[in-house]
Parts: sequence; structure tokens; C-alpha cells
Amino acid sequence: MQFLSDNAAPVHPKVWEAMRAADQVDAPYDGDALSARLDEAMGELFGAECAVLWVATGTAANCLALGPMCPPHGGVVCHREAHIEMDEGGAPGFYLHGAKLLLTDGEHAKITPEGIAAVIDPIRGDVHQVQPHAISITQASEYGCVYRPDEIAAIGALAQERGLKLHMDGARFGNAAAFLGEGAASAAGIGHVDALSFGFVKNGGMNAEAVVFFDPAMAGQARYRRKRAGHLQSKGRFLAAQILAMLEGDLWLENAAAANAAARALGEAAKSARGDRLLHPVEANEVFLRCTADEREELRGKGFGFYDWGAGAARFVSAWNADQAAAQQLADAIADL
Amino acid sequence: MQFLSDNAAPVHPKVWEAMRAADQVDAPYDGDALSARLDEAMGELFGAECAVLWVATGTAANCLALGPMCPPHGGVVCHREAHIEMDEGGAPGFYLHGAKLLLTDGEHAKITPEGIAAVIDPIRGDVHQVQPHAISITQASEYGCVYRPDEIAAIGALAQERGLKLHMDGARFGNAAAFLGEGAASAAGIGHVDALSFGFVKNGGMNAEAVVFFDPAMAGQARYRRKRAGHLQSKGRFLAAQILAMLEGDLWLENAAAANAAARALGEAAKSARGDRLLHPVEANEVFLRCTADEREELRGKGFGFYDWGAGAARFVSAWNADQAAAQQLADAIADL
Amino acid sequence: MQFLSDNAAPVHPKVWEAMRAADQVDAPYDGDALSARLDEAMGELFGAECAVLWVATGTAANCLALGPMCPPHGGVVCHREAHIEMDEGGAPGFYLHGAKLLLTDGEHAKITPEGIAAVIDPIRGDVHQVQPHAISITQASEYGCVYRPDEIAAIGALAQERGLKLHMDGARFGNAAAFLGEGAASAAGIGHVDALSFGFVKNGGMNAEAVVFFDPAMAGQARYRRKRAGHLQSKGRFLAAQILAMLEGDLWLENAAAANAAARALGEAAKSARGDRLLHPVEANEVFLRCTADEREELRGKGFGFYDWGAGAARFVSAWNADQAAAQQLADAIADL
Amino acid sequence: MQFLSDNAAPVHPKVWEAMRAADQVDAPYDGDALSARLDEAMGELFGAECAVLWVATGTAANCLALGPMCPPHGGVVCHREAHIEMDEGGAPGFYLHGAKLLLTDGEHAKITPEGIAAVIDPIRGDVHQVQPHAISITQASEYGCVYRPDEIAAIGALAQERGLKLHMDGARFGNAAAFLGEGAASAAGIGHVDALSFGFVKNGGMNAEAVVFFDPAMAGQARYRRKRAGHLQSKGRFLAAQILAMLEGDLWLENAAAANAAARALGEAAKSARGDRLLHPVEANEVFLRCTADEREELRGKGFGFYDWGAGAARFVSAWNADQAAAQQLADAIADL
Repeated sequence: MQFLSDNAAPVHPKVWEAMRAADQVDAPYDGDALSARLDEAMGELFGAECAVLWVATGTAANCLALGPMCPPHGGVVCHREAHIEMDEGGAPGFYLHGAKLLLTDGEHAKITPEGIAAVIDPIRGDVHQVQPHAISITQASEYGCVYRPDEIAAIGALAQERGLKLHMDGARFGNAAAFLGEGAASAAGIGHVDALSFGFVKNGGMNAEAVVFFDPAMAGQARYRRKRAGHLQSKGRFLAAQILAMLEGDLWLENAAAANAAARALGEAAKSARGDRLLHPVEANEVFLRCTADEREELRGKGFGFYDWGAGAARFVSAWNADQAAAQQLADAIADL
Repeated sequence: MQFLSDNAAPVHPKVWEAMRAADQVDAPYDGDALSARLDEAMGELFGAECAVLWVATGTAANCLALGPMCPPHGGVVCHREAHIEMDEGGAPGFYLHGAKLLLTDGEHAKITPEGIAAVIDPIRGDVHQVQPHAISITQASEYGCVYRPDEIAAIGALAQERGLKLHMDGARFGNAAAFLGEGAASAAGIGHVDALSFGFVKNGGMNAEAVVFFDPAMAGQARYRRKRAGHLQSKGRFLAAQILAMLEGDLWLENAAAANAAARALGEAAKSARGDRLLHPVEANEVFLRCTADEREELRGKGFGFYDWGAGAARFVSAWNADQAAAQQLADAIADL
Repeated sequence: MQFLSDNAAPVHPKVWEAMRAADQVDAPYDGDALSARLDEAMGELFGAECAVLWVATGTAANCLALGPMCPPHGGVVCHREAHIEMDEGGAPGFYLHGAKLLLTDGEHAKITPEGIAAVIDPIRGDVHQVQPHAISITQASEYGCVYRPDEIAAIGALAQERGLKLHMDGARFGNAAAFLGEGAASAAGIGHVDALSFGFVKNGGMNAEAVVFFDPAMAGQARYRRKRAGHLQSKGRFLAAQILAMLEGDLWLENAAAANAAARALGEAAKSARGDRLLHPVEANEVFLRCTADEREELRGKGFGFYDWGAGAARFVSAWNADQAAAQQLADAIADL
Repeated sequence: MQFLSDNAAPVHPKVWEAMRAADQVDAPYDGDALSARLDEAMGELFGAECAVLWVATGTAANCLALGPMCPPHGGVVCHREAHIEMDEGGAPGFYLHGAKLLLTDGEHAKITPEGIAAVIDPIRGDVHQVQPHAISITQASEYGCVYRPDEIAAIGALAQERGLKLHMDGARFGNAAAFLGEGAASAAGIGHVDALSFGFVKNGGMNAEAVVFFDPAMAGQARYRRKRAGHLQSKGRFLAAQILAMLEGDLWLENAAAANAAARALGEAAKSARGDRLLHPVEANEVFLRCTADEREELRGKGFGFYDWGAGAARFVSAWNADQAAAQQLADAIADL
């Protein structure tokens, strides 16, 4: 009964099946028939022209997406707790050749036009200070909270006004879209977002993420940089196969919905039992609860696995394969605390 | 009847099996039980202490191996036709932060102490010129030729004398070891080589290569750089599983031997028919033949797939799953040219 | 009557004289007789073995000093308002190949062991987070405040305990030393600090700063990186001449004392008139005053030049050539506000 | 009687004078009145719109000029013996973030359209190989030879056809222009060249070179990168003053002509005495002579200073302050060998 993370969950059977079906030899790198279908498949999903690159990790996806947006001497605005700032081992500094992350705040690890302005307005437009070139938002956020379409539009409007590009880190994009329930295009802020890191690994895939450029002209540079970063796998067909399997019949949405449902159960239990236990609204597949060391011990004693979140809280993450019965048991245990 | 490349061949059934067996959840990244076994498994194979990192591609393996060997202001000596120089999209320049490849020559894309000295001796030891810090050799070479243990020892002696580190790009290490027939340690130049990029993708794996540091102290920095390059997969257990499956029962050697046998058949045919057709000795799984455009057309007309190699030659590569009957057919066709 | 900055002040006559005397041909780069005297001259000043490199700017000095302290995947702790973070156009990101500045707080732009710990203690020691490798402090700070020897010692002790290197940005080191009045070694935290950027440009020089490595082993790498950054001037003797002229007869200290005296006069006036006008203690050659737009207009109307410091404050900087009478006039004008 | 190099020669009296005249305070960095005159002054010289940045060294000038021309994943074609390849400590790798120099050959260290094509034609247009983005030529070349206007035009035509930018390293641009005698625009290949590193240090300056962008749009990025590289001096007026003094009354051309005359005398002597002594035509201010160790000893015995150039040759360089009588003495001594 693990709620530690979604990042080590098993691979979905349909993904396995698609990978096995891709075993026969085809052209190497991204010259194969499956890779060739990605642009169109994503284009249909988002109802927008796009250029798609597969890569093995979310970190690589984020960095390759940001590459065409920000020169080495520039900066990218993001939340102070964004994954690119906190958990990628400095990868943006590497891929962007020393470009700087310009940190802003915002409730639930979501940023706002006001928060962005608070960071970039004081920057003098001279060469002594690093100038902003792009904004990166995370859908769903590090705290499992989801940008509403109008929130993305407002950030997009600011980006356009200031001449900034807009990137969306969608490591848990499926969970966000499942929560919003209005389709992929709406969750992705089509028309505002220039590139999306569309995550599959946490959602039933093995090791394939998609960088989706809604401005296909950006993809050319990214293809060179993918190779240069050692991310152009020679048997890339196995990555394309994963992505296509996830898109097929909206498996990505189905898996995310299952994960979300388990989290929602925990969230409901936490709310009903004690209103202030929830640190953040439960919108995607993560639940952050205030609970004491004793309470955590009690839950672990009942067989539940999860991470401490600082001294007085715990994080529970449900995956695509969440056992809804186990989730209910955990929900009950939380309610009983 | 494809002899285009070994880099897009199917995945070996035992590798598939091991990957499937790794599906159950375990710790993320490289904290899982399979990743934990790599150091020991490789240590046994090479009879030497080592620290092992999995990565998805040979390019990443080479660059992460070279990282601890060469500072940004330094240089790495390699063959003018080495993969790191010719075919990695400038990845060493990226990973080593602008360090320089110092190019030398040598028959069959193998380098020699004399060739290395010819490049580094003229370098003045002042700050105006990039100083050598490491040497990289390719086992087997870009032309499918194999360094003999004494050749590696001679390069190793020079490296030690000049204070240089020694890296071995073993994208086709299995094929080299199978040719030498003296075990992994001998083919890897244990005692001389500081790090080996041990390739599995071309030899029956899907997307797992091993960086093997024979100086385990080098691995610490490489672990940070792997993450920073977006190469630390969260379901790393699937990469570890591939590598362990390849080591199990020396599958890596068996696969390589099968590939080599097919290439040897072609080489024999080429030699018996016309002595000067072979551009390079056939030692691993690659065959480079002088043949005219007409001859290439004739072979393609018979259903054989391969790459042109410049205007007057062709390259044939056999993979672990080489169909020995097909190889014999091709050998006969070559003999009949 | 300019109090805008010290960074554009004239060159001291003795510096001009020394430069003229260096005109005759000597060996290029840093092979000349003047450059050869720097290590010894600085060694005498600090009473410690040191290796010295001249460079043209403080930004280059800081970055070359930090180079041997922090690998590309590492981090440097500094104050949130440090020059390297705020005013160097992202130079540390460039020179350190994407390494990260880890920002801490502290009154008067000085950092403390507690502030450093607050930043580095939460960093998990795993590859997902950028690890600290060095600390950088500014003597005097961006607000003209001076680290006392025991404050440096405390930071040095923490650095040693955590295995971090310690850098001092001494763009206004002279002003700090003049304030402390205990000699160069004490102001530089000899025994604790690994490298000092010793600034002369703001203190009567033209375009020469010194990077002083108290661990001479660090200098080797820095020499290569200076060349690689295009900072090895061929007529380097003119930079060495400036530095030697500044050291001769403690001109650096005399100039700084003159600048400090002018600032002290302003500070006294501000204190005597209205106790809370001073934003920071006046210790070096900078004065930060709360004053309204009207008050600033009044001062400017009387012919005083200075920068606004946000909406409700002003910054006055005095240089080595400060006209003490003018300073007193400004002091009177401040007292009269 | 030194003919070692022009890079350590004294500073011309008019340059000293202009520097002294710039001592009074003005705005810092490049905000001063002298820096503001550079664009116009160069525009007049070249009869073309241009944007000019001062920097302290030729290495920095070259790298800042190339910055806007080549992305980190790209390549710059240059001669195998170009300064950027041989003598800048790997600076292009640093400034261009790992971009690659693509080396070509050509007599007298000059490159040709054929030589460029020989390097770039074999590059496959795929992501596995580094693609050319720019060409860099050196006027005068490392062997003191000068590109004729039609030679530049031919390279420019190739550059345009292939979509490559064209850079000119003019560390000895004055010497080239003095040789051609057709004005600055002609020597600089106006209409073909995108940016020129216009050198003054070897020609009577102290430490100021100009990066001249004939496409002013390129200068914006370069300004940020100059700051980021620590090359934006706060008393930049002293660099601007040097450049303006050199342009005033064509001092740059006069100085170069004097240096050339001395070299020409040596060249004539070498030719008249023994036709094959000259390794390269003497066009600028460098003379490369075949001469034995004994002959070199003989010349040194007579008090002449110069560098050996490999085992059987010597290099003589004359500077702006060449003593024509000494040059004639050396010429006689060469004739007498």
C-alpha cells in the first residue's frame, strides 16, 4: 500500500504491448515509422500544429523545451519551488549554458501575473542584470494544484506583452487535464503556451516523455540539442511506441483519472475529519497533510508508505495503478487519526 | 537481409524477460535492488573494483566517462574519425563545457602512442594552448578493428607518463572481446583504462549502456552530472535489468560472437574473391569493402541492405541476431561480384 | 560635487606615473618584470604565501577566484544582494558553467553562519539538488558595511566544517581595511579565506584588479581560465604597474581612508540631524539615506549628484579623490533637510 | 633591436595623450562621451553603418564577434593555424558554449572557398554532425599574408550561398590595410563581412580592441555577453579614448605602414640574397625565414631578437615603433648569411 510516489509505478500493460510490437527492426534514431506519427497524433490531441520530440526524462524534456526560449545570458521566471529549480540537479544551468532562474512566489506553487511582475519589474533593462526571456509554469504544480484556463491565459497575456516565451512543465499534465475535464487543449493553454513537457513516465509509461512545440520552428534547434545531450536513442521507436500507446484511446487521461480518484478519496477523508489538515487543495494525484510524527507512525504502522514533508506534514502520491480499496483504507485511517 | 547497422536491431528475448521481471515497484532512480547489483556484477566480470552508472545512450556514456577526466579548459586526444568527434553532434563540447578534442591519426581508426605523441608533443605547456588531460580510444574502432592488450598497455603507459587519463569507448566492446577471446578484463585493458563506456544497445539491449569507472572515485562527480544532464531515469530499474541480463551467462559475449561470425563470413568471401577488396581487417562485426556503384546495385538487387561508404565502398554491419544463412548468401554474392 | 559612484573616478597620479614608467617593452602577457613581483608584494602585505593574477574588472576577478572552488554542478552561497548575484550580468553562471548561486539573507548585505546554514541545511545530499561548494562574502558589503575579523572567522569555521571554500569579493576591500584599521591580513580573514578579489579600480586604479589566491595551488587552473576568458592582456605590465603603485607606500589604504572620511562626514550629519535617516551604518565609503523625493530634489538643486535608491532613499558614494570641503557642504545640506 | 613581437610594443604618444585627456570623471562603463562616439567614427571610416564595442583583448573581441553568429551546437570554419584555434586557450569553446571549430587548410594561413567547401561539403545535414554556421578569416593571416578584396568577396559569396556568417579577425588589420592601400572598407570586405575584430594593441594601443558589427543588430547580444564575460570596464572611457586616438588622422594606418616598411626591408633582403629563404610573401609586418640554427645564432650574436619558428626557420615581427635603421641592419645581416 505505497503512496510514496508515482514515479516508480509499473508500466501499463498496453504500453508493454506497444513496446513489444515495436521490436522488429526499423530505421534508427527518430527515423522510424512510430516516431514519424508523433506530430500528427499530438496535433490531433491538441487541435494545433505541433512538433514533437521524445526524450527519456522530464528533466531533459524541460531543458530541451526551454532551450529555444532563452539565450545563455537570459533568465527564466519560475516558481521558487518549481521542479526545474529544486529537483533537477541544476540541469537548466547546464542546458541553458548558465542562464538564470528568476524565482517568484505564489500559493500552492502556482505563479501569477502579479508574482511574475514582482520579479521582472525591478530588473533594470541594462546589461548588468539578467533579463527575462521566458516563463515556466508547472501543470499540475509541485503541490498537485491545477492552473485554470483563465489563469494560463492571464500569464500568457503577460508573456506576450513582455515578449517572453511560455513553457509548461507537464510532468503530471495528465492529472491536471483529468481534473479540469475540458480536454487536452484547454489544460495546455493552447494559444498561450509555446512548448509543453508532456509527461508519461509518472502515468504508466516506462521512460518516454514528449516535448511538444506548439511553435514548430522551435523544434529544429531542439533536435540538435537532443542529440548533443546524448538523448537521441538509436532505438527511439520504443519511446515513440510508449507515447503512442498512451495517446491511443486516451489512456493517458484514463490513467490519470484513476490516480486522481485515489487522491481525492484521501483528500475527502482529510477534509471531513479535520478541516485544516489539508495543506493544499487536492486537485491532481498528490495530497499534502498536516500530521504529527505520532500520526505518521500510526499510519505507517497500518502498512501505508509515504514521505514525510518537513516536520509536521506528509505527502501521499497515488499512481495510475492505485488500488482504490487501499486508498479507501488509507482514507479511513486518516479520518480516524 | 539487412546489414545496415546493429544499432536498430531487436531486443534480445532474455532482455525483454528481465525488463518484464523488473516491472514491480521498487525505489526510484538508481535506488532499486537491480541498480544496486551493478557494481558487484561488473566487478566480477572485470576482476576489478568498479563503480557503474547506467545511461540510455553511448553518447551520454562517453561524455559522463570523460567528465571527471578533463576540465573545461583541457583537451582529450582521440582519433580523427572517433565517434565522439564525428557522430555525437558536438556532445563532448557540451558535456565538457567547451573542452577540445585533439585529433590524431592511425590506421583502421586505431590510435598509437606515436600518433598521440605527434599531437601532444608540439603543444607548448603554456596557457595559450589547450593542454591534453585524457585520451579516448574505441574498442572496437570505428572500422571494426580491435586493440590488442599490448596496444592498450602501450597507450596506457604513455598516458601514465604524461599524466593523462584513459577512456575506452566500448560501444562495440562485446564484439572486441569476442574477437580477442581472452575475457573482459583483457579487452578492457584493466590496469590502464580509467573508465569504459560498455555498450549493450548494439548488442541486444534496448536503451541501456554502462559507464564503468575502474577508479570508483570518479563516479561521484559523474552521478551529479548524470542527473544534471537529465539522464537519471526514475524507473532506472529497467536499465539495470537490461545490463544484468546481458551479463548473465555472458549473453553479451554470446551475442557479439554471433554478430562477429556473420561479419567474418563476409570478410572471408571478400578476401578469397579479391584480396584487396577489404578496406580494413574484419575483426568485429563490421565489414568495409571496396566496391563500385554497379556492384552495390547488384548486391541491392539481390535484396541486401547496407550503407554506401563514400563513392567506392560499402559498409556491412551484422547484429547479434544475424541470420547466418543470409550472411552466407551475402558472402556468396560478394564472392561472385 | 558628484557622489554618484567611485567606479568612474579619475586615476591617481601615482598610478599614471607607474603606468608611464612601464611603457618600455618587456615580455608580453604576464611574463614581464612587474607581473613577476606581484606574488611577493602581496605576500608581504598579507603576511601569507599567495599567488596573484591581474585582471581588468571585478567581475572577472570574482569569477576567476570562484572557478577553482566550485564545479559546474555545484553551488556558491552568497547574499541575495551580492554583486555576483545582482550586478554581473550572470557572469558566475557563464564562468562556472551553470553552477548556481545559493542565496541567503543578512542585515546590511552581510551574511552570517546562521544565514548560510539556513540555506544549506535543507539541501538533501543527493544528486537531485545542487550541493554547496563555496561561500562568497563581500568586504565591504553592498551597503558599505564591514565584516569584523571574528565574523569572518565564524564563517570560515563553518566553511571548514562543511568542506566549503571561502571567497571574498573585495571590490572595496581598501575601504573595509581602512575602516577596521588593523591591517590587510585582518580585513582579509587570512587563514579563513581561500581567495580575495582585491579591487583597485574604485580606489584610484584604471583597470586592474588582483585575484589573490591564499592557496596558491588554485592559481594554476585560474591562469588557464583567465586566458580562456580573453583576460590575459598582452601588455599586462600596465596592469601589474597599477597594482604595484597602489601597494607602494600603502596608497590603497590612504586613498580608501580619504573616501571613507568623506562618507563619514555625511553619515555623521545624517545621524545628528535625524537618527533614523541612515539605512545602514556608515563604515566604508557609501551612505544610504532615507529621504523623500522633495529632499532629493532639494539636494540636487544645490548641485549634489547621487543616485536614487528606490522610492524613499538615496545613495551617496565617495571616491579616493573626494573633496572633503564638498563633502562637508553636502553634510550640512543633509543636516539642514 | 627586438623583432620578437608587436604585442608588447610601447604605447603611442598620441594614445597616451588621449588617455590622459580622458581622466576627468564621466559616466561609467560605456555610457561616457568617448564611447558614444565610436559608432560614428567607425561608420565614417568604413562608410557603413556599424555598432562598435570596445574590449581589452583580441581573444575577447573574436569571441564576442562570433557569439551572435554561431549557436552552442554549431561550428565555425577557420584555418587550421588560425589564432582562435591555436593560441586562444580554447576561448571560442568557452564563449560559444562548446561550439566547434571546423578546420580547413590553405596556403599562407589563408583560406579559400575551395578549402571551406572541402570541410563543409562532407558534413551530413543531420543532427549527428556539427553544422557550420560561420566562417572566420584573419586579415592579415597568421603568416602575415593579406586577403585581396576579390578573395574576401569570393568567400563572402560562398558564405551567403550557404547561409553562413563571416567574421574577420583583424588583430593586424591595420597592417593588411596599409599593404592593400585601398582604404579600410576594401580591406574589411564591407558588404561581405558581418563583424570585424579591429586590433589596436599590436599597433600602438595599450589594451583596447574594437568589435565592429556591420550588422548592428548583432551588437545587442554582444553587449550582454561582454558584461557577462567581465569585459565591461567601469572606466571604459580609457578604452574608447585609445580607439579614437588611433582613428584620429589615420594613426592606425600610419603606425601599420611603419611596421610594414621595416618588415618589407627584411623581406627584400631575404629575397635578394637567396630566393627560397622566404616561407611566405612579406605583406604585413611579419617575416618568416628559413634559416639554420647556426644562422640564427649568428643573427642573435649581432644583437637581433626574434623567435625560432620550428627547427629550420625564424619569425621576425616589426612593430609600429620599428627602428628603420635597425631593420636595415638586420636586413643586411640576413643578406650576409
